[in-house]
Amino acid sequence: MRHFTSLYDVPDLGRLLRTAADVKRNPLARPDLGRGKVLGLIFFHSSLRTRLSTQRAAMNLGLEVIVMNVGSDAWKLEFADGTVMDGDTAEHVRDAVAVMGQYCDILGVRTFAGLQDKEADYAEPVLQAFIDHAGVPILSLESATRHPLQSLADWVTIETYKQVERPKVVLTWAPHPRALPQAVANSFVEWMRQAEVDLVITHPEGYELSPRFVHDTPVEYDPVKAYEGADFIYAKNWSAYYDYGQILSQDRRWLVDAEKMARTSEAHFMHCLPVRRNVVVADAVIDSPQSLVIPQAGHRVVSAQAVLQEMLVHLGG
Amino acid sequence: MRHFTSLYDVPDLGRLLRTAADVKRNPLARPDLGRGKVLGLIFFHSSLRTRLSTQRAAMNLGLEVIVMNVGSDAWKLEFADGTVMDGDTAEHVRDAVAVMGQYCDILGVRTFAGLQDKEADYAEPVLQAFIDHAGVPILSLESATRHPLQSLADWVTIETYKQVERPKVVLTWAPHPRALPQAVANSFVEWMRQAEVDLVITHPEGYELSPRFVHDTPVEYDPVKAYEGADFIYAKNWSAYYDYGQILSQDRRWLVDAEKMARTSEAHFMHCLPVRRNVVVADAVIDSPQSLVIPQAGHRVVSAQAVLQEMLVHLGG
Amino acid sequence: MRHFTSLYDVPDLGRLLRTAADVKRNPLARPDLGRGKVLGLIFFHSSLRTRLSTQRAAMNLGLEVIVMNVGSDAWKLEFADGTVMDGDTAEHVRDAVAVMGQYCDILGVRTFAGLQDKEADYAEPVLQAFIDHAGVPILSLESATRHPLQSLADWVTIETYKQVERPKVVLTWAPHPRALPQAVANSFVEWMRQAEVDLVITHPEGYELSPRFVHDTPVEYDPVKAYEGADFIYAKNWSAYYDYGQILSQDRRWLVDAEKMARTSEAHFMHCLPVRRNVVVADAVIDSPQSLVIPQAGHRVVSAQAVLQEMLVHLGG
Repeated sequence: MRHFTSLYDVPDLGRLLRTAADVKRNPLARPDLGRGKVLGLIFFHSSLRTRLSTQRAAMNLGLEVIVMNVGSDAWKLEFADGTVMDGDTAEHVRDAVAVMGQYCDILGVRTFAGLQDKEADYAEPVLQAFIDHAGVPILSLESATRHPLQSLADWVTIETYKQVERPKVVLTWAPHPRALPQAVANSFVEWMRQAEVDLVITHPEGYELSPRFVHDTPVEYDPVKAYEGADFIYAKNWSAYYDYGQILSQDRRWLVDAEKMARTSEAHFMHCLPVRRNVVVADAVIDSPQSLVIPQAGHRVVSAQAVLQEMLVHLGG
Repeated sequence: MRHFTSLYDVPDLGRLLRTAADVKRNPLARPDLGRGKVLGLIFFHSSLRTRLSTQRAAMNLGLEVIVMNVGSDAWKLEFADGTVMDGDTAEHVRDAVAVMGQYCDILGVRTFAGLQDKEADYAEPVLQAFIDHAGVPILSLESATRHPLQSLADWVTIETYKQVERPKVVLTWAPHPRALPQAVANSFVEWMRQAEVDLVITHPEGYELSPRFVHDTPVEYDPVKAYEGADFIYAKNWSAYYDYGQILSQDRRWLVDAEKMARTSEAHFMHCLPVRRNVVVADAVIDSPQSLVIPQAGHRVVSAQAVLQEMLVHLGG
Repeated sequence: MRHFTSLYDVPDLGRLLRTAADVKRNPLARPDLGRGKVLGLIFFHSSLRTRLSTQRAAMNLGLEVIVMNVGSDAWKLEFADGTVMDGDTAEHVRDAVAVMGQYCDILGVRTFAGLQDKEADYAEPVLQAFIDHAGVPILSLESATRHPLQSLADWVTIETYKQVERPKVVLTWAPHPRALPQAVANSFVEWMRQAEVDLVITHPEGYELSPRFVHDTPVEYDPVKAYEGADFIYAKNWSAYYDYGQILSQDRRWLVDAEKMARTSEAHFMHCLPVRRNVVVADAVIDSPQSLVIPQAGHRVVSAQAVLQEMLVHLGG
């Protein structure tokens, strides 16, 4: 695997999942695979889980890590081509990225949707600049429209905790005071459509995700119906895709609470965190034994390490 | 030793001091003790000595370090339980901490007294959240009310430089333009009461420390009398404990100057740094040969490494 | 080599250049030279290339790195001696630096010209404080008036790409919307004067560099004439030295464009980056095959590693 920015970069999903299972069993099995190599982690946006879990994964592989917060550690980058740069941007992204590629063997990059301009966000200009100009493999640490390391961790979590061969997995929208990207939801759907699960998406009208992710996945506008018989409830807020970046509803009926959970088949609760308690999910649910949020977050090390292993093997000695 | 947040976490103080002596003699004796393990250093408050010395200590033990500045690297945490989190806090501390515990084998945390609410500060909510929710050993890098790594370094410093069997050690309050916590002073008293020293505390009236730290330690309100025959002058500002967080005095009589030092038994000068020169201590004292502030700061590596060694041994392979 | 703050710290330039050539050939030849040692990188000013390339160089040598952003990670430092520190500075630089020297075996420091007071900038107070008080070797990561790691990387770049025995190298001033220091230009001249090159400096009148750097280097006020027959065009903005820190011209005739490049002997284009595109250099030039900006940036690892190697050898086991 050269880059890892979406499911489509994975040449053999079965092999990646087997690698993940190996990593989960024995995270310290390959302490020298990354020896002498450097992973640069470039953050355009703040992060806790991704920052820590990716560093941990790299350390388990003997890979050195350099972390860089664009903005606080450096300066403002220019993204438009052909600009006369006499304003407040001090360096063009194509130069900055090419330089980073000189210093690191793999570059991880976290960007975020601006939520102002759908075409711009979905064109993934920052991620694409890294792919185009770095000259080294690129690892997405979440981009404007996808979060594949999260999805792989989610997959490992469902695989670990499922009680039936083909569980019913419900992705439910939940309220949130701020406009959030669609990235986690998009990726979750993208990956789960490849899994042996019955996936249902539920959200208020107007919160439809992009058809290029949803395809023919069933969408249910009544959360109570959607929860019926579910084995996993995966909650996530996102802002509107069609009415791009807008908050259309704060409807508390979409809070994940004990009442709706009672309609499931003793479903496990999942969320990628950070989560607004009692807005997205009630304390009683997230603090219940059925909540998987902490092991799910723990699996972020597994997913990052499995991906880094495959990238390092591809890079070779 | 599982956690290290105060003297009361130390099961065998004599052993810890012997470990510190070993570390001081040969800091690179155990370069593989931490191999394959990760220490997370979580800063809610800025730091220079603690940040650098703890990293150095970890490196000497082969322990990988991940540093995280909460605030600049991540987002605002919620501390209250049961809150509907629709305000400006994006994650509950119990979730954030549990997640960090998934990625690190030991978590170090630096917090700071708010100095608004004595009960809240002395309840140590942040430190307690880490102990309660991380699931891994917690190392205090200074909390609202204690700074035990500093106290151990102070102990090593006094042990190294004492000329008499039972030195007279004076903890003196000193002026400062800002309200500072009682943490360093509290811990210093807590630890020194276990040492073979004659401890005296001196400060203006109104600056009494909490009785749960002072117990029957002699308090002298006249600095000139307190300095008489002292072997060590340990200066530190703190804000009032009873009139909580207030600055009651800027009395320059409490500046540590050459005149008062002349009344001591050629006392060594100590301060944990950072120090306001010519406010807390005169240049002539801090720059004199009797000043120990630099080796004292150097001993922060010794204390962090001794503590980490004991925590790693307790953690096992 | 003990310190590395300018050309004058290099005891044997030929040997340093041979070390650089060795490092370029095989960067991982000495993975244990720095084992057990710690390099502290202290940034008073933001950085991308220096931050990443120096970390990479250190990692190649098995040297551990601690990065510290003064300001965001710590607090404001006092530089004046004898001050009563009751204002907004929380620690004196001499104390902070002495403490850092307790924790690190080598200290790298990046400072920046204030451009308000020429005498102050050229006295290099921050760099000098590190040399005076750290007690360990000091590596300049760019100071107010020099950037020797950049100059060594530039030298390696010219050595690598030159087509004639004694190339003509032109340092050209270029416009910029902000006032920038003279450091890169000063150092480039300082080093190039030792190289087997014909160095010419070209800039508008009023932009003369300090005579202590220029000496008898030819200065040409007509860029078109200066470019004639050049093998390397090295562009850099700087603010005025005599009318200190002022922007005297934004004359677009000094933009490095294809028209002027056509007058050269198929010259390579160089710039230390970050660069304002179409202000300092036209896209057509920086994106041409003759542009060396990316390999030049890559050579920053070579120069940092060569210097660190010589410093480590001098430090001994």
